[in-house]
Amino acid sequence: MNIALMLAIAAGILGLLYGVVQTLGLMKANAGNARMQEIAAAIQEGAAAYLKRQYTTIAMVGVVIFILAFIFLGYLSAIGFLIGAVLSGAAGYAGMLISVRANVRTAQAASDGLAKGLKLAFNAGAITGLFVAGGALLGVSGYYAYLTEVLHKTAHDRDLINALVSLGFGASLISIFARLGGGIFTKGADVGGDMVGKVEAGIPEDDPRNPATIADNVGDNVGDCAGMAADLFETYAVTTVATMVLAAIFFGETPYVGMMMLLPLVICGVCILTSIIGTFFVRLGKDNHIMNALYKGLIATGLLSIVALAAVIKYLPGLGFDTPFEYVSAGTTFHFTGMTLFYCGLVGLAVTAGFIVVTEYYTGTGKRPVVSIAQASVTGHGTNVIQGLAVSMEATAIPALIIVAGIIGCYLLAGLFGIAIATTTMLALAGMIVALDAFGPVTDNAGGIAEMAGLPPEVRHTTDALDAVGNTTKAVTKGYAIGSAGLGALVLFAAYTSDLKYFAGLPDAPAIFQGLGNLTFSLSSPWVVIGLLIGGLLPYLFGGMGMTAVGRAAQAVVEEVRKQFREDPGIMAGTSKPNYGRAVDMLTKAAIKEMVIPSLLPVLSPIILFTIVYFIGGAVPAFEALGAMLLGVIVTGIFVAISMTSGGGAWDNAKKSFEDGFVDKDGVKHLKGSEAHKASVTGDTVGDPYKDTAGPAVNPMIKITNIVALLMLAVLAHGA
Amino acid sequence: MNIALMLAIAAGILGLLYGVVQTLGLMKANAGNARMQEIAAAIQEGAAAYLKRQYTTIAMVGVVIFILAFIFLGYLSAIGFLIGAVLSGAAGYAGMLISVRANVRTAQAASDGLAKGLKLAFNAGAITGLFVAGGALLGVSGYYAYLTEVLHKTAHDRDLINALVSLGFGASLISIFARLGGGIFTKGADVGGDMVGKVEAGIPEDDPRNPATIADNVGDNVGDCAGMAADLFETYAVTTVATMVLAAIFFGETPYVGMMMLLPLVICGVCILTSIIGTFFVRLGKDNHIMNALYKGLIATGLLSIVALAAVIKYLPGLGFDTPFEYVSAGTTFHFTGMTLFYCGLVGLAVTAGFIVVTEYYTGTGKRPVVSIAQASVTGHGTNVIQGLAVSMEATAIPALIIVAGIIGCYLLAGLFGIAIATTTMLALAGMIVALDAFGPVTDNAGGIAEMAGLPPEVRHTTDALDAVGNTTKAVTKGYAIGSAGLGALVLFAAYTSDLKYFAGLPDAPAIFQGLGNLTFSLSSPWVVIGLLIGGLLPYLFGGMGMTAVGRAAQAVVEEVRKQFREDPGIMAGTSKPNYGRAVDMLTKAAIKEMVIPSLLPVLSPIILFTIVYFIGGAVPAFEALGAMLLGVIVTGIFVAISMTSGGGAWDNAKKSFEDGFVDKDGVKHLKGSEAHKASVTGDTVGDPYKDTAGPAVNPMIKITNIVALLMLAVLAHGA
Repeated sequence: MNIALMLAIAAGILGLLYGVVQTLGLMKANAGNARMQEIAAAIQEGAAAYLKRQYTTIAMVGVVIFILAFIFLGYLSAIGFLIGAVLSGAAGYAGMLISVRANVRTAQAASDGLAKGLKLAFNAGAITGLFVAGGALLGVSGYYAYLTEVLHKTAHDRDLINALVSLGFGASLISIFARLGGGIFTKGADVGGDMVGKVEAGIPEDDPRNPATIADNVGDNVGDCAGMAADLFETYAVTTVATMVLAAIFFGETPYVGMMMLLPLVICGVCILTSIIGTFFVRLGKDNHIMNALYKGLIATGLLSIVALAAVIKYLPGLGFDTPFEYVSAGTTFHFTGMTLFYCGLVGLAVTAGFIVVTEYYTGTGKRPVVSIAQASVTGHGTNVIQGLAVSMEATAIPALIIVAGIIGCYLLAGLFGIAIATTTMLALAGMIVALDAFGPVTDNAGGIAEMAGLPPEVRHTTDALDAVGNTTKAVTKGYAIGSAGLGALVLFAAYTSDLKYFAGLPDAPAIFQGLGNLTFSLSSPWVVIGLLIGGLLPYLFGGMGMTAVGRAAQAVVEEVRKQFREDPGIMAGTSKPNYGRAVDMLTKAAIKEMVIPSLLPVLSPIILFTIVYFIGGAVPAFEALGAMLLGVIVTGIFVAISMTSGGGAWDNAKKSFEDGFVDKDGVKHLKGSEAHKASVTGDTVGDPYKDTAGPAVNPMIKITNIVALLMLAVLAHGA
Repeated sequence: MNIALMLAIAAGILGLLYGVVQTLGLMKANAGNARMQEIAAAIQEGAAAYLKRQYTTIAMVGVVIFILAFIFLGYLSAIGFLIGAVLSGAAGYAGMLISVRANVRTAQAASDGLAKGLKLAFNAGAITGLFVAGGALLGVSGYYAYLTEVLHKTAHDRDLINALVSLGFGASLISIFARLGGGIFTKGADVGGDMVGKVEAGIPEDDPRNPATIADNVGDNVGDCAGMAADLFETYAVTTVATMVLAAIFFGETPYVGMMMLLPLVICGVCILTSIIGTFFVRLGKDNHIMNALYKGLIATGLLSIVALAAVIKYLPGLGFDTPFEYVSAGTTFHFTGMTLFYCGLVGLAVTAGFIVVTEYYTGTGKRPVVSIAQASVTGHGTNVIQGLAVSMEATAIPALIIVAGIIGCYLLAGLFGIAIATTTMLALAGMIVALDAFGPVTDNAGGIAEMAGLPPEVRHTTDALDAVGNTTKAVTKGYAIGSAGLGALVLFAAYTSDLKYFAGLPDAPAIFQGLGNLTFSLSSPWVVIGLLIGGLLPYLFGGMGMTAVGRAAQAVVEEVRKQFREDPGIMAGTSKPNYGRAVDMLTKAAIKEMVIPSLLPVLSPIILFTIVYFIGGAVPAFEALGAMLLGVIVTGIFVAISMTSGGGAWDNAKKSFEDGFVDKDGVKHLKGSEAHKASVTGDTVGDPYKDTAGPAVNPMIKITNIVALLMLAVLAHGA
């Protein structure tokens, strides 16, 4: 077997091994006293029960699609779909399993100080991160190895391409369900619990008297952790696959096609190594600044990745200006060298860095946007929400410009393939980025357990400090995922147009493809414009559905909690225990029910649009409209997603600004429990479904729309 | 002079005459008692002072642009710009003058019953509506007559095209300042006043003890009335001009070019007549259903317009399938007949009807979306806002589909020119639509005056009933304006691409245009994609700025009112009068200051984008990116605008659901002053800048971006 491919597979295994070894270490940590373990067990039980039901439901959809893939695309695609789906689901499940064990141990470790709490929580995050990256890389490269080394498929075999794309589809499908279902659960519990607990009853977050408090902690694990892990798995897998597909198309006639197809896998492979090394750099400095500790790890990973990237390029295409490559795309011939490709990788890293800096600015405590929301809370609920919405909209500007700059830079360096390599390099850091994210829900839970178990307030204080940083790192991950989608927009669109051209150029091209070779997707075509509009509509409709679902779930939680308080006054008095299970059960049913229709929206929309336009206008308009839809969904999707995730993070941290008292511009200090604090809780409540349900689910939604379109082409070509 | 042109001019004059005659009648109505007149005088004074300052500021920008137009495009364009700007400003000013006189008379008339109040308020709205439509038509057709009949310019003269486009630019420029400045003023006052008055002090809206109450009423006149009038003037003028420009391009080589250029003017002309007739059909039936009364007028206008449209088509191109016309656009030859053009007009009317029905559904009291927001208020502020945001996002779906259906229908019937005629026909009803809208602020003010003057509660009840309908009609107008922008998107883009092709084809084409003849604006071009992204960013950045401005103004109002309450406890006791002027002055300064930068965003963005891309990539990328920007701004703009205007209307009416007590799903009745009502006030507060500041200003923003691009082409061609 090719040594480069072996390296990629080995790196994937290494990622998983790291996860296993660290897990063994984690399990040895002190799991706290009996009360803590009892609470943790309830959370574990709820999370496992929810995920079981969620996966059962997804499996029903999955089986249908598996059969369709088998019928229309053959068994290799069906197996690819299965691999993607199972691994994406496993990544989410593993994330949950780690998280529900790390939470109670972090609560215990936090009793011994910030450094210990941070170390344990970050280690838990790193396990999930490496499981995600390692699993995705192993899945893609392993199946690729099977297809090419065992079955001897080559870049010319559509089977190979279809099987890889189907793998991406499997991952995407699980991920949208997991993101949305988990998001509805967690935010239904969080919003409902906060509204009735904090605002009405005036009891603190995670107070054991609140019947929704276990559900809230379950939600962190199934939404912020399992949902996020499945999402990033999907982003990683789809980006790698898309780059490989492009390489197969662009370099199919050259001797170096195999090398170019392996390039994304090897880049991902070495970055798993740099991510693992980076985790050892996360250490709290003397300043006790948590974000700086995390940054140390991230910067180490980034710098090492530059070196690793240079090595990979040197080993594969050759690091110099003297080995020119060329390919043709959309009628233009592009020339590049190993060196310009290396520069594209640097652009990918720069885009990542840019997104992190901007997201931290817009969501970080003490920065202008968050302070402006906190200040607006002083004048009431309304101005808080207005300012939060203003920040959320404004927060899209610089990220959009960064994406634009990235696209232009890579395009000028190496054309579309350059953009693909930049996106791959960006995603290759996923192990580290997920680690930063996944530590958030662990600390959030740790705080909850500390509160419920009645640990001393300084433990809660420690976990709160970790949690505040978690808000920013969570926003960073979401921005990063959607940013890679934006940067990769042209890559997925190019895969669509190149496929179309390929099928149209076949000597025995099916009738529907005939005469499509020169489709330009010109903005002057009304079919392109309506495709953009319909694509643009999807994130709005999807976002609206997601928000409605959370609103509905939260209202149900509020009513449930009010009912328990009413029926048993002993709960508030602390003399009797609330029925935590009822809230968990109710949310489980609600989330499962609500996730299905929105998740099917991006699966069915491309098919419906294509069919309708085909019957009105014929094949050319139908393919034009479908292609434009893929870009339309990205053009609005980026703004919807970034505004929601950044805005939500800003609202959350604006609320946190009041925990230690917020000093307004007139020098008045507003404490927890003040009117201004209550207004900030309203904003946080609104931000919750923004940042943790609707916003992040836009990313897999965009991918699904794109992948379904690619698979439709394959089906039309295959079935004809 | 051509009889068709004379007809258009005559219709414009007729519209203005109707306005003058009705104004004389309005002034004769009883202006109420001394207290009422005193209040009305304060509102008049504040509104006039604000508009004077606003226009002075705009004039400074206007003078600069006038000089630039004169230097780069010649005196005809400069004069065109001046005409558009002055008339648009005049339409806004006239709207304000009528409104501040009709308010107090409506309050008085409402004492005599709902029918009388409705009649007077609607008449006032109709005056504004006909001033807007008549003025715009007279401006465009009069200047066109001067250019063609006096100066003998023909469709081949770029001077003619540039002069008309400049007229549109003048109108757009005023309108964005007026929409945004007025919007910031009115919503700063409204939000600030409500938050401190209703929520904190617990006094009703428009209570004379609230120092912001006069400012709130001034705001209705300068924002909802003057700003709206300038906006619709702009939409009307730009749509007509764009259709004329397309006609000149498409039919330049045919003998019927003159007829095709006149067609939009004559359609607008006859629809002024049908709008006037329609106003006489507005009459309260026995059911006392206000919306039905208004619909009678609208339906009469619509049905009459079908007949009038048929007559115009019969008289000009000929109403039959036997007079085929053809033109070439983007390489495709289109055939159409008078009859298919008539069908396109019907599509325009159907789109209008569709928008009205959908908007009424999403914003009407008692319908599912508004009830869902009211229901969500029962569980608190947070769920209210979440549900409102969900409704706002969902509300974009059907309008987008309507636009898509309209585009496809017209394109299949008669190509791009068919879409242009549909958009023109849609806009031709503006007289009637503005009448429905402008009656809203009049009744809102009437309610305020009734409250402040201490009229009996049943008067307030009558004006409240009128005002609730006004919320829906206001949302309808905004949806209608943005819908026409969506439908017209391809028209403006076609004007851009056709101009580009024209300049590139000139024998002495300036260097920058050379080789541009076959620009395809393909989605495969990265320059097109970045153009879409940057265009897509504008509505978000603009919306964020608008929301921030309102938030800031509202916070200042809250502080001012709190200060007055603190410094003089006699105000709340009712023994001393608050200082109304201080709030008006403060808001005037704030609105003027805050409106400038966002308004310049769409003016400068096309120029900056073009320049940067030109230096990075050269002429082709620059023109591609600029063209794509024009569609990008529409793709996100439509969703941002519709979600904001419909969502805001829904929040407002959800709040109004509590005025007579809202019965929730469990049968519990929530009255004014209840916790649920307070939560609904928060939502309304958030919806205010959504629906009355940021949302509606997106429409002129889109137009400006497009027109600036057209003018840039002219300048580049002219200057070279």
